[in-house]
Amino acid sequence: MSGKYKVYFSNDFEKTLQNKNLKNSHLLVDRNIWNLYRNKIKNKYLSTKIITAKEANKSLEEVIKYIKFLLKNNIHKNQSITVIGGALVQDVGSFTAHILLRGINWIFVPTTILAMADSCIGSKSGINVGEYKNQVGSFHAPVAIYICPEFIQTLPESEIVNGIGEILKHGLIKGGTIFEKITEEVKNIRNLRVAGEVIYQSLLIKKQIIEKDELEKNVRKLLNYGHTFGHALEGYTDHKMAHGIGVLIGMDLANFISLKEKIMSTSNFNKIHNYIFPYISTYMVKVTDYNKYMKFLSRDKKATEGELNALLSERIGKVKIVRIKLDTKLKNYIKEYFNTYARR
Amino acid sequence: MSGKYKVYFSNDFEKTLQNKNLKNSHLLVDRNIWNLYRNKIKNKYLSTKIITAKEANKSLEEVIKYIKFLLKNNIHKNQSITVIGGALVQDVGSFTAHILLRGINWIFVPTTILAMADSCIGSKSGINVGEYKNQVGSFHAPVAIYICPEFIQTLPESEIVNGIGEILKHGLIKGGTIFEKITEEVKNIRNLRVAGEVIYQSLLIKKQIIEKDELEKNVRKLLNYGHTFGHALEGYTDHKMAHGIGVLIGMDLANFISLKEKIMSTSNFNKIHNYIFPYISTYMVKVTDYNKYMKFLSRDKKATEGELNALLSERIGKVKIVRIKLDTKLKNYIKEYFNTYARR
Repeated sequence: MSGKYKVYFSNDFEKTLQNKNLKNSHLLVDRNIWNLYRNKIKNKYLSTKIITAKEANKSLEEVIKYIKFLLKNNIHKNQSITVIGGALVQDVGSFTAHILLRGINWIFVPTTILAMADSCIGSKSGINVGEYKNQVGSFHAPVAIYICPEFIQTLPESEIVNGIGEILKHGLIKGGTIFEKITEEVKNIRNLRVAGEVIYQSLLIKKQIIEKDELEKNVRKLLNYGHTFGHALEGYTDHKMAHGIGVLIGMDLANFISLKEKIMSTSNFNKIHNYIFPYISTYMVKVTDYNKYMKFLSRDKKATEGELNALLSERIGKVKIVRIKLDTKLKNYIKEYFNTYARR
Repeated sequence: MSGKYKVYFSNDFEKTLQNKNLKNSHLLVDRNIWNLYRNKIKNKYLSTKIITAKEANKSLEEVIKYIKFLLKNNIHKNQSITVIGGALVQDVGSFTAHILLRGINWIFVPTTILAMADSCIGSKSGINVGEYKNQVGSFHAPVAIYICPEFIQTLPESEIVNGIGEILKHGLIKGGTIFEKITEEVKNIRNLRVAGEVIYQSLLIKKQIIEKDELEKNVRKLLNYGHTFGHALEGYTDHKMAHGIGVLIGMDLANFISLKEKIMSTSNFNKIHNYIFPYISTYMVKVTDYNKYMKFLSRDKKATEGELNALLSERIGKVKIVRIKLDTKLKNYIKEYFNTYARR
């Protein structure tokens, strides 16, 4: 379970690594981060495991290998795992820490905007088993999170947009002046001071929601806005589409369906679309096999008996769960959306 | 985590299976139980997985296969797993239920005395990874436990003694008139009415301890009485020795060390030895390679830096944690114990 934990903001990664929490710890680090920052990281940990952040490495089969590696390195209850990387490395580290020795401490240094502004809090992990995606997982919060925006400097552009996806989602769920502030700030997210501010705002919105509903029984479900349609797109592209970009397209598509279902007005749709679309236009995927897309949609955890608990929206600040049929009408809405907006 | 759950006693297994909790559920069942009771069990579940209760099947590698089987059978959040079997099948079912879909409900019908009188409560599971024993696990309580003493009728004698091991342990930790009552009752444990009574007493003692310390931070450690020395013996015999029998010998050996260390008086040692020994005399193992035994001892989760947090005892009702060195003196005590009591 999650327990209490603190999020620290730091503008000096190297100084952060001197924190006592990060001693007596085994390191799990993203390969790109290792390549870029190894001189600052090496020789500080009881063991070091470098992991490539790809879908195939986020599996129970790979977790077994990592657990054996840690046991071979004599990992002990009073030691911890330090994870330095993005959301995928977080999944592996968090889940491993949860089941190893019936639960040990872990510390997280997120290195992508998505991990800093979203996934680092909330305790969740998702692990693949064979061809089944995210069907295994746990709730196991780190004992501490250190956010060092300086990692943003070495992120590729696609990773920036990936992070903006979840930040905009939080803004759209919350609405009001915070949404206005966030949408302005994300434009300058390469500025580290601005990044720190917008990450803080994003986490604050998520914190308010998960504190009300840690185990996702009710209000936390709102955080899945854009996810159902986005996950299906990630699946459709064989996970070539990044998660945050899938969420952006997923929200735009959810809003389009809301428009068609007369839940959202045309002016509200256009307003939000104009916020979202500049980020996704170059990443937009032209869906051609709609039966395949619908099949991915029907595999959603929230899909039962030919129906979907879809997160639709009325306006900025008003997302709601609507039960919709996985039928031809829905398929035609989706077709219309991609025919209109995916021009490649 | 564990949450609240109820233990129901039933004298009619077939009637128990009609309980609504056991509907809409996937079955994990011990192979012996399936062979003996299949006519009462079959056709009641969404899927049925039969498992042989052997150490090799209590592994993360096997859990992966079981999870794939359940996903193939479209297991869903609002369904459950029903486990019918002993402690090993419980480990597999409990851990699977914990990590699958980030935690689903499970129901337990324990079929051995050990599982009925001890392991069914307390939420713990232990899973092997490669050659590492019990290094992975979780705390995940069943939503309900159904104790049907009628299964005792088809247990082999060794399984009876196996269960008595943990029952006597609870009695020895608790002491007083409850200990006297338990030691009298276990003699007639084949009588199902008596069995129900002694199982209830045993669970009550364990319940009082784990309610004080669910995550084994302090007082719950007392439940490991006999386990450190017993586990090493289980390892030494390549897991041919049953757990409960290991615990019985482990308690007798812990008491012998307590005697040698002048923590326990000779009369107290003899008194307890006379309770324990009749159950273990035919299962006693002659240790010959003491370095090998010491190596297993040093692998204990509670062993650090050449020392052991041993559970020693002063008298009936007084078990305590004593930090002892894994040295030649200890090895000689152990040698003396086996030379004196293992005559085969």
